[in-house]
Amino acid sequence: MTSLSGVWAASLTPLDSALAPDTPRLVDHAGRLFSSGCDGIVLFGTTGEGTSFSVPERIGVLDDVMAAGIDPARVMVGVGCPSIVDTVELSRSAAAHRVAGVLMLPPFYYKAVSDDDLAASFRWIFEQLGADAPPVLLYNIPQVSGVGVSAELAGRLADDYPDVVVGIKDSSGDVESLRRFLSAMPGRAVFPGSELLLMPGLEEGAVGCISAMANVNSGQIRRAFESGSAGDMPTLEKARAALSSQSIIPALKAVTAQRLGDPGWTTVRPPLQPLSPEQGARLEAALPEA
Amino acid sequence: MTSLSGVWAASLTPLDSALAPDTPRLVDHAGRLFSSGCDGIVLFGTTGEGTSFSVPERIGVLDDVMAAGIDPARVMVGVGCPSIVDTVELSRSAAAHRVAGVLMLPPFYYKAVSDDDLAASFRWIFEQLGADAPPVLLYNIPQVSGVGVSAELAGRLADDYPDVVVGIKDSSGDVESLRRFLSAMPGRAVFPGSELLLMPGLEEGAVGCISAMANVNSGQIRRAFESGSAGDMPTLEKARAALSSQSIIPALKAVTAQRLGDPGWTTVRPPLQPLSPEQGARLEAALPEA
Repeated sequence: MTSLSGVWAASLTPLDSALAPDTPRLVDHAGRLFSSGCDGIVLFGTTGEGTSFSVPERIGVLDDVMAAGIDPARVMVGVGCPSIVDTVELSRSAAAHRVAGVLMLPPFYYKAVSDDDLAASFRWIFEQLGADAPPVLLYNIPQVSGVGVSAELAGRLADDYPDVVVGIKDSSGDVESLRRFLSAMPGRAVFPGSELLLMPGLEEGAVGCISAMANVNSGQIRRAFESGSAGDMPTLEKARAALSSQSIIPALKAVTAQRLGDPGWTTVRPPLQPLSPEQGARLEAALPEA
Repeated sequence: MTSLSGVWAASLTPLDSALAPDTPRLVDHAGRLFSSGCDGIVLFGTTGEGTSFSVPERIGVLDDVMAAGIDPARVMVGVGCPSIVDTVELSRSAAAHRVAGVLMLPPFYYKAVSDDDLAASFRWIFEQLGADAPPVLLYNIPQVSGVGVSAELAGRLADDYPDVVVGIKDSSGDVESLRRFLSAMPGRAVFPGSELLLMPGLEEGAVGCISAMANVNSGQIRRAFESGSAGDMPTLEKARAALSSQSIIPALKAVTAQRLGDPGWTTVRPPLQPLSPEQGARLEAALPEA
């Protein structure tokens, strides 16, 4: 059904000193990720601070990244907003650039919503998009968004919109959850949202992983993906553990700043808070060698 | 410090058949709320499905409501978004109309954020707004947004931005929480986010209430506010209980539809789902007489 597979980085979004997205730094980062083993990148996912930017900011960055010549077949874009109108607008922008897919959070302000409530939300979005819908991967990350996508809901939407719903990113961190999605939406691209579930995922039928850590250790994740061997997992686990003392997004940015000798890379947009270059140096030193 | 006080309705946002905000219906509704005992209305709070609309939709509705001649001194506007850039833009729009205040949620996508993280978010917003900042009421509704505002944070911001932070809406539903805010930000306007806490709130120093139920029973809430008597509370409790079998926002819209003989008023934007006119009729019949 889809060629979406392999190692995808949930890309960081570098910022300038005014906290605006810095597209030249982002384009450079994407190039490094591709050359170090990533099949593709996700822009404006959770790791990319997607919900911290306005709709015009997000559309502008995608326009600029595409204008810089990055292959849209290697790009997915986070599009899910509290307002389904915003989700439609971001999806249209992504579709116009013919990106590989969009990651779609359900509307996430109201909690205590049912599968029927969320199905109605996704249906409205898909109907608005009509024939212009980009390939959609649903996005399950309940521990952050507060509103999960159940396997039943994903299966129902995949059945009802077979040309639109091409997969799911499951960032619940739970192998059982991954199994439920694989069972509920056969033939679709199921990505665990962490490289730590790469191996069990591949064994169960997942297509790869979408990883935040890939911003700093994509080569190691690539080797694990290619080998298909559980023997490569301890290195990935050690890398993740090396950053676990800090909030992951600021930590990944600080490590990148350290490696590039570019302190501006530490910048995050509130509510996230930056680490210092010194903290970045300590974290970088704790990572396993590439 | 502020003249903000009394009975405020967290106004519903009526929609047309395309799910767009219906300003003529909203202006009519506001007029009914003012004439039935509300000192003011909050637009685009949680009850007003604020986060379900795009920034341009929200600005457009406020422009239209103001153009219709509604007194800005009787209007507050919800402005808090996951993106602090959006919060700034909505706040500027509200300030330009000289509304009585804005209700400001903290950025609510990332959870596990500290008071320092949220303080940095509010500080960035206030610094961006500068002298153009509208009067700000912080908005604590952790059970929905997933990101609360602690009394310590509110007190710190009120101390550091005495000309900006004029109060808080505390929708936690907890009298103890209300007491903490009253103690942390003396002289500021503390509103419980429910008429059910009107009486204990007034006794402790709160200035009134901001109420979702006021969309359908503002006269009763007004009487309770004027009397200051606990004897008026059972009627308010009975009204709230009459709608408790349903999700409150669709229920309030369905009751309004029934009373006006206007089935279009039942419309909500997903993820919320509408009740039927028949359900609205049953709920309306269960409400205590005005």
